[in-house]
Amino acid sequence: MSSDIILLAHGDGGRLTHDLVTGLFLKYLGNSLLEGLTDAAAFKVGEGRMALTTDSFVIDPPFFPGGDIGKLAVCGTVNDLAVSGARPLYLTAGFLIEEGLPLADLERVVASMAQTCREAGVQVVAGDTKVVGRGGLDRIFINTAGFGLIPNGVDLGYHRIAPGDLVLVNGNMGDHGMAVLTAREGFGFEQAILSDCAPLQGITGMLAEKLPGVKLMRDLTRGGLATSTKEIASSAGCDIWLEEASIPVDPVVKGASEMLGVDPYYMANEGKFLAIVAPEQAEEALRLMREHRYGRNARIIGEVRPGKGDCYLKTALDGTKYLDMLAGAPLPRIC
Amino acid sequence: MSSDIILLAHGDGGRLTHDLVTGLFLKYLGNSLLEGLTDAAAFKVGEGRMALTTDSFVIDPPFFPGGDIGKLAVCGTVNDLAVSGARPLYLTAGFLIEEGLPLADLERVVASMAQTCREAGVQVVAGDTKVVGRGGLDRIFINTAGFGLIPNGVDLGYHRIAPGDLVLVNGNMGDHGMAVLTAREGFGFEQAILSDCAPLQGITGMLAEKLPGVKLMRDLTRGGLATSTKEIASSAGCDIWLEEASIPVDPVVKGASEMLGVDPYYMANEGKFLAIVAPEQAEEALRLMREHRYGRNARIIGEVRPGKGDCYLKTALDGTKYLDMLAGAPLPRIC
Repeated sequence: MSSDIILLAHGDGGRLTHDLVTGLFLKYLGNSLLEGLTDAAAFKVGEGRMALTTDSFVIDPPFFPGGDIGKLAVCGTVNDLAVSGARPLYLTAGFLIEEGLPLADLERVVASMAQTCREAGVQVVAGDTKVVGRGGLDRIFINTAGFGLIPNGVDLGYHRIAPGDLVLVNGNMGDHGMAVLTAREGFGFEQAILSDCAPLQGITGMLAEKLPGVKLMRDLTRGGLATSTKEIASSAGCDIWLEEASIPVDPVVKGASEMLGVDPYYMANEGKFLAIVAPEQAEEALRLMREHRYGRNARIIGEVRPGKGDCYLKTALDGTKYLDMLAGAPLPRIC
Repeated sequence: MSSDIILLAHGDGGRLTHDLVTGLFLKYLGNSLLEGLTDAAAFKVGEGRMALTTDSFVIDPPFFPGGDIGKLAVCGTVNDLAVSGARPLYLTAGFLIEEGLPLADLERVVASMAQTCREAGVQVVAGDTKVVGRGGLDRIFINTAGFGLIPNGVDLGYHRIAPGDLVLVNGNMGDHGMAVLTAREGFGFEQAILSDCAPLQGITGMLAEKLPGVKLMRDLTRGGLATSTKEIASSAGCDIWLEEASIPVDPVVKGASEMLGVDPYYMANEGKFLAIVAPEQAEEALRLMREHRYGRNARIIGEVRPGKGDCYLKTALDGTKYLDMLAGAPLPRIC
């Protein structure tokens, strides 16, 4: 490519677009479906229900401790499929780029996407690039949509949740949000906090396909553990009680949260999920999670009780706190 | 909703996001798959190959003569599926919104999407909203990904193209690009030029499923007729000759093009496609196209000849012009 920055002409559908697609995107993301460069990728799939999802990523900064917008754009959408019980198969990728972005930055992002796709076992099969003039957007945004297959026999959903079910998470809360916040604001904590950004299809697939007692899974992104739990309680029409003493939070993240006055239960995670599991399979689920590299610090953190859809936290001091959805304390551009 | 503009908190995954989703998106786009508000939509489909595609829309201005970014975001992705021979079924929608966008503008866009979805026979089954602070993006961008089913028996592709095949288009070239250009730059032409933005699944589905002689279709968006034709010739390894006298261009668009020094063959269309058809079925294809509301001015505009992948225009004055991909004259943010 003759320019080392992105030009408007890279997005005009002409020669430079063609060069960018063949010289960069195909170089890293190439596969038989993408290489056709047709209007849509065409494929056959096996038995089961299909799953479709989408997510856009506008994270600031695009490179952060523990990841970058490319890794995040793959993990975010893979994880939405994964917690639905689907085996993620194919992604689409829509790049929105500000004129003047260094091509080296774009290449770093695309290479990171490619590596994460390999780990997640997915292929990017369709893509699109738009370039907007300087000031028309901030550096780079990525949209990914994901397609997966829910194997026969897997049935996750609010309708299965019942009092007595236990609530599990696969590890520490708040790492991603705090990593981005401290990186962005330059608080200069002695020890860098790393995002937990990771593709979860391995650990979720194992749970969903081995344990019929796994009733619902949810990745804990924007709004964090508290918002997701409240939404689940609300949709299931049961109360959910969480126990503060059982919820794992990294001590550095905990310290930073207290100093900054934010709550790790409301911070975004990008490699964490919650599972609602029938009590008789909860210990087995915990064991399986802990054997997986993305579940070493898994815990049982609460339970489902009869109720009207509310969510409560039993605090370490034996108090009770009502948990509502995130409101009024936005951390923008966290994903 | 308590605010009449978009706030950062509308994108934080908390209460206001929830209100926006239930109060606006579900109001217009609601269907049984979307209403679950699960991480991914799950569904079963019939027999055939699946088709998956994506497109992002950053058009400036977002409201233009003949359409808006919402209509465009549905048509663009529906048409990518349609020209692949697929029956479009499901869309995902990712909204990227600048803080401060009037909610009324967003509502107008979403209502327009809903209306276009009904015409196209598709449902939005998954969505995502991100809000970026003022200046972080220009008003509103939308990404849509599309999922469709290619019926058994439909086989479109470069591999089928052979010398002797004829090239058809379903109507006038350049309307969309010129509508946006004149609306944006305020040239004040006496007569407004309207975008041709339209969902094409009806006309393309009829052709693909009725006429096995239809070998390839391509929607003529960024880069226009010329860029697409060159790409097809290149991929098929044949030459394509177009005849200027046969290519339909609206006289007002033609006049504006001459005045502005742009070429309607390189201008984007959003409701036009090209079809490569075996010679023995070309007249029948033309007849079918002309019976359809989006093909009234369909024409046979050229033919495939033996060659190495080049594209030529036989001009009205009997000269020959080499057509290459668009290069160096970008019209940014046309879609």
